[in-house]
Amino acid sequence: MIELGAEIEGLAPAAIRAIQNRRLAAQWEYLWEKSPFYREKLAAAGLGPDSVRRVEDLTRVPFTVKDEIRMSLEANPPLGAHLAADPGDIVQIQASGGTTGRPSYVGLTARDRGMWAEITRRTFWAHGFRPADRVLQALGMSRCWVGGVPVIQGLEALGAACIPAGAEPGTTWLLHTISDLSPNGLVATPNFALYLGNQAKDVLGVDARQLSIERIYVGGEPGGGIPEFRRTAQELWGAKMHEVMGGTDLSPVLWAECEDQSGMHFVSHEFVYWEMIDQAGNPVEITQGATGELVYSHLYREATPVLRFRHSDIVEVLDTECRCGRTSPKIRCFGRTDDMMIIKGVNVFPTALQDIALGFRPATTGSVRIIKHEPEYAWAGPLHVRVERGEGRSADDDHQLRSRMEQAISDMCRVRARVEVVSFGTYPSPGRQKVRIIERVYET
Amino acid sequence: MIELGAEIEGLAPAAIRAIQNRRLAAQWEYLWEKSPFYREKLAAAGLGPDSVRRVEDLTRVPFTVKDEIRMSLEANPPLGAHLAADPGDIVQIQASGGTTGRPSYVGLTARDRGMWAEITRRTFWAHGFRPADRVLQALGMSRCWVGGVPVIQGLEALGAACIPAGAEPGTTWLLHTISDLSPNGLVATPNFALYLGNQAKDVLGVDARQLSIERIYVGGEPGGGIPEFRRTAQELWGAKMHEVMGGTDLSPVLWAECEDQSGMHFVSHEFVYWEMIDQAGNPVEITQGATGELVYSHLYREATPVLRFRHSDIVEVLDTECRCGRTSPKIRCFGRTDDMMIIKGVNVFPTALQDIALGFRPATTGSVRIIKHEPEYAWAGPLHVRVERGEGRSADDDHQLRSRMEQAISDMCRVRARVEVVSFGTYPSPGRQKVRIIERVYET
Repeated sequence: MIELGAEIEGLAPAAIRAIQNRRLAAQWEYLWEKSPFYREKLAAAGLGPDSVRRVEDLTRVPFTVKDEIRMSLEANPPLGAHLAADPGDIVQIQASGGTTGRPSYVGLTARDRGMWAEITRRTFWAHGFRPADRVLQALGMSRCWVGGVPVIQGLEALGAACIPAGAEPGTTWLLHTISDLSPNGLVATPNFALYLGNQAKDVLGVDARQLSIERIYVGGEPGGGIPEFRRTAQELWGAKMHEVMGGTDLSPVLWAECEDQSGMHFVSHEFVYWEMIDQAGNPVEITQGATGELVYSHLYREATPVLRFRHSDIVEVLDTECRCGRTSPKIRCFGRTDDMMIIKGVNVFPTALQDIALGFRPATTGSVRIIKHEPEYAWAGPLHVRVERGEGRSADDDHQLRSRMEQAISDMCRVRARVEVVSFGTYPSPGRQKVRIIERVYET
Repeated sequence: MIELGAEIEGLAPAAIRAIQNRRLAAQWEYLWEKSPFYREKLAAAGLGPDSVRRVEDLTRVPFTVKDEIRMSLEANPPLGAHLAADPGDIVQIQASGGTTGRPSYVGLTARDRGMWAEITRRTFWAHGFRPADRVLQALGMSRCWVGGVPVIQGLEALGAACIPAGAEPGTTWLLHTISDLSPNGLVATPNFALYLGNQAKDVLGVDARQLSIERIYVGGEPGGGIPEFRRTAQELWGAKMHEVMGGTDLSPVLWAECEDQSGMHFVSHEFVYWEMIDQAGNPVEITQGATGELVYSHLYREATPVLRFRHSDIVEVLDTECRCGRTSPKIRCFGRTDDMMIIKGVNVFPTALQDIALGFRPATTGSVRIIKHEPEYAWAGPLHVRVERGEGRSADDDHQLRSRMEQAISDMCRVRARVEVVSFGTYPSPGRQKVRIIERVYET
């Protein structure tokens, strides 16, 4: 059994449930007292201050959806009508992401900030990071992104040595810094981690695996959990890659992989409660192989709490046991409801296409895009896929690549695709921007 | 009397001295025990473990110059031969500046990091920031710069609400964030603060003074202390501008202005000891009107301490008393020895030229450069100065502008100058990069 980051991670599910019930009762009371937003919403659903005592009671509570949060922020800027703390108690403001459009904001009280740091600390611990480690933080540090300063605060809580670089300095600067400072840990988006590793030879004259990195913490975009992607990145760096998952409205991280690398454990038991629902919104029992959308409720959040928040991540429960001693089920995320497409009734997620494209290297670079011609998420097909030709490959081979890849998509995703091959270098190198696999070409 | 950020700031000089003596004795012992670099250097100067007990004894200690630190870093990368802590105790690594060349690094133990945060907290306090404030951090957040994450850690220590944006998102994003979140405080480089304010009308359709900013904390480059610059920036924002000064090898800040805005107080008494020396290296008595170069010694530093470090800042003691209750003398920095030029025996600092150029607005934009044709810092003149023509101004007026400005430089700096007027828009807008007033056009 591996040493846990927090005792609660190894408790029997019933014991965790008891802690969650106590926390939920207090949080529920807090919301009724402090949040006009939830008081109104819950009263409209026929619920009262005594309606929820245990997490099982949450099934009676209406979902909160992203549009409600958006409207709450618009109605009561800057932190939303769902701000439940005194504005004077806010000590940190983070912003939802994105590199386009206006950000939306979340506030943190001192307790909330401590909670985020504690969860992030556990995440690092689960991956195998320890206080003696030296870690280069190469996620975007600016723009109030939760992947930036809050992850630094989590590393602080761990007590490891932090190199607060950000992704902003670019590949050359970061690779030299790795060479200079010999960190054994790296924190980055998965695509940026792969790109950095691929540039090592050009920039430093050595392969990435000759550098000091032993463990890579990836998050912020899908990729780290795609088997072919992970295999490639791990070989490139001679390092283990661990994936995390969280959400701006919730915590920079909520889920983290243990050293077994066999799916993400929930590491936030006493702070957040999670459920799984089907497309109709009905509860899904958490058993091995079950799939569904994640729904989260804060159990211990002062500033901008959410309740039964549909987070749109679609996950599969890989296992309910693990040799690491954590009693949380392990999941992998295979997409978001926002990104899901239904082709002739079959669900398709972009990450599956990415996995396939990576399998065709070096005929492709692994870069792939799904071209959406209509706003609808369901259509009759075929799927329009663009894949980038591998470096030095001839366009004469495109025909063969196209038909092989169309066959693979048919075999693995059970949908018909039309594959288009574009020149090497069509897609920009990953860096500060998240890689968006779906390209929407319709007018909005 | 204004409420102080720390009791020590208001103690009588003799009481501060007693604390410094105790700290120095412990630090001296620590250096002999932990630092082969200083043991060797001090022994070579005929000093022993008992040679220094009080700060007055420091005059017997040889200076440490920047080249020694550079060589120490090269000889023993990454943190230098002067690293005195166990490498396993390093919890944070920051880098010296610059946007060009390779960075040099400084390490911090947990205690060092706490010390930096405490000094930075006092700095904010001195400016008038309080826990109820909401502060946008718009200094460069990435590249391990001491102006980034360490300033966030100081804001955390203050307990004010921090918006960790960085300068990286750019003017439009930052101005929208100010409009969205209504911070009353802004942290930025002086030139970037001015530029942001000037863009408000274009980006938001309102003047900067209609926005929420009440106090601006500036550092990272000269400017905030130049009278004409400060007057302009304060009018633009309808806010008070306070300057800070520190150093990567020492602390993000060491000096901070109180609400009286009449010079910078030393706010780091029990952590760092400062002296003033003349060009020959002899001590300069700290009296009103005295000028000299600053020399610093750490009194409480574990990881990468410095001893009698010539920091190259040239300062003037403005006053030795202040109505704020701080007993530290107040200084202003008018340049660095690195930037000083001697024209026919007269010392000239770039900030003086900047002040003059600003006085000629709107005929100029205020942007000015000194063109150095030779590596020597002393020459017979004239000074070659380029100034940027004001927006919408005609080149027909250049002749008059040139002669008026040459006269002003002669009057104020007592040196002969040749002024060249360049087109509006020649110099890039300030942003993440520091503004470098001296342009070196010789081959190196």
